[in-house]
Amino acid sequence: MIYDLIIIGGGPAGITAGIYAARQKLNTLLITKSFGGQVVKKAVAIENYPGFEKISGQELIQKFENHLKKFARPSFSEKNLGGQVEIKIDEVKKIYPVKSRKAGISPKAKLFNGVKKTNNDFLVSTKNKKEFQAKAIIVASGADPRPLEVPGEEEFIGKGVSYCSICDGVLFADKTVAVIGGGNAGFESAIFLSNYVKKIYILEYGPRVSADETNQEIIKKTKKAEIITNAALKEIKGKKFVESMVYQSRKTKEEKTLSIEGVFVEIGSQPATAFVKGLVEFNEKDEIKVEFETCQTKTPGLFAVGDVNIGQYKQIITACGEGAKAALAAYGYIQKQK
Amino acid sequence: MIYDLIIIGGGPAGITAGIYAARQKLNTLLITKSFGGQVVKKAVAIENYPGFEKISGQELIQKFENHLKKFARPSFSEKNLGGQVEIKIDEVKKIYPVKSRKAGISPKAKLFNGVKKTNNDFLVSTKNKKEFQAKAIIVASGADPRPLEVPGEEEFIGKGVSYCSICDGVLFADKTVAVIGGGNAGFESAIFLSNYVKKIYILEYGPRVSADETNQEIIKKTKKAEIITNAALKEIKGKKFVESMVYQSRKTKEEKTLSIEGVFVEIGSQPATAFVKGLVEFNEKDEIKVEFETCQTKTPGLFAVGDVNIGQYKQIITACGEGAKAALAAYGYIQKQK
Repeated sequence: MIYDLIIIGGGPAGITAGIYAARQKLNTLLITKSFGGQVVKKAVAIENYPGFEKISGQELIQKFENHLKKFARPSFSEKNLGGQVEIKIDEVKKIYPVKSRKAGISPKAKLFNGVKKTNNDFLVSTKNKKEFQAKAIIVASGADPRPLEVPGEEEFIGKGVSYCSICDGVLFADKTVAVIGGGNAGFESAIFLSNYVKKIYILEYGPRVSADETNQEIIKKTKKAEIITNAALKEIKGKKFVESMVYQSRKTKEEKTLSIEGVFVEIGSQPATAFVKGLVEFNEKDEIKVEFETCQTKTPGLFAVGDVNIGQYKQIITACGEGAKAALAAYGYIQKQK
Repeated sequence: MIYDLIIIGGGPAGITAGIYAARQKLNTLLITKSFGGQVVKKAVAIENYPGFEKISGQELIQKFENHLKKFARPSFSEKNLGGQVEIKIDEVKKIYPVKSRKAGISPKAKLFNGVKKTNNDFLVSTKNKKEFQAKAIIVASGADPRPLEVPGEEEFIGKGVSYCSICDGVLFADKTVAVIGGGNAGFESAIFLSNYVKKIYILEYGPRVSADETNQEIIKKTKKAEIITNAALKEIKGKKFVESMVYQSRKTKEEKTLSIEGVFVEIGSQPATAFVKGLVEFNEKDEIKVEFETCQTKTPGLFAVGDVNIGQYKQIITACGEGAKAALAAYGYIQKQK
């Protein structure tokens, strides 16, 4: 069987691409580890997705998922042509162009829906040892938290070091914690944590924080946060659990120790793109280069949307817009292949 | 007074830009003739805005408008710094760069919010003879229906010729009508009209219709539509009201007359961009050229989002995504001006 389109990822970008692909009657497979991407981990309510004045990440993604599942079918069927999206919970390990593989490697591939099998097709292999073939691919695999890479980080994961304040925040009631990173993610994490903790240090490596002004104002009102700029984290220390951390002032070169019981890491993310190496170009952050009108990569038929691409504005609404554009562009691309 | 940002237009793109500008604490003015843009005229329910499985255009835009108005303030106040959007119902007639005007033309302009008045500012003049100054502009003025430009069209506007099936469809109960245009807009118009009318001709100038496959399937199921391709409309005829129309087959050159009582025009739109000529470049459809990552035009600080720009995918969700990107890009631009 050959799909028209495989979408990789179940966050806002992938789900929107799925809705649009279904509306275009593309025979579509969506592969994702889980639904929601980073949205379900959002520490504060979402107030900037137009149409919902205030909604939790979990609620919004549930609405997205329900919307997509209106178009879902349980499994592939050649009789059930197009118009529905098949969903598999799995993890993509590699994308190959068919032409790079020996002939016969995918003998089960059959003509489907009048689509000619061509050398331009893609093969997708997964953690569950499955292989799927498609005319076009939309990569919407999002990004994972970027680790600190300091001594103590790995040792204390789950023992004070966390990458998800919304998951773990409640464990730190009345304690002192640190948030590493002075961007929006760091501030939103700190705003959320302020509901539980006694005090929050926000450490920023650069000379000033980059969180937007709304977030800066809210954090000021909590009166629980102390912002430390020019701070280079050196080590996380403790016995069984985190007890302190050491940072160096990048101005005075002085090393300082803060007593804290939790460290929340919010220094950005690394796009989940390893499986697509060789087919696309990356920038210095390992984000996939795309042409922004269609979100197509350097490989025709291969698109990248949302947090995995080089777009600088990583918003839910921009990810959705990109998902829609890529699905429509993929539709146009597939029509030309027929 | 000098605003940080003026947003022109109150459709999905402009409203999203307004929400994002407010969240960034930009001192913002939004000028629009009305709210909703083309969305309120959508003939069928919207099923592809993620989060709402099925919603009418009017309902969705009401949610958008309420969302924006959460951030609205009644009028300009220097004491009430930023964070809120002022809304004026008016129509923009012209945008000038300040430097093109004689010094002193805008003597009331004062320093505001620590923003230096510079030669890079823009002046916006309106139908109500008001003039406003801002550091940056987002043009989100949408598009108007493109006229047929055939004899009889103007004469019979409101007497059988309509540009809005959702407004006028009900007047044609059990009558025979024509929809001009075989794109999505034409098919959606025909789908809506099929609830009322006896029969619908869909005339398409090209050799095939371009509506998406979902729409083609739905219209087939209504059993009320006859699709005529390669049809060049020549004239709309009648006495007091429309009675017939004449088209020429572009294949056989033969002229044919159809008895109809209504003509719904769905041959695309023309972007509302006259007021910005001289500051931007246009493509052959009069759409504003932008760089897609930020939606900035050739003039720094001047952005164009949604149906007015060259983007080929004119969807609600893509317009919203662009509104968000432009507002964040405008924020970055304004910060650099300080």
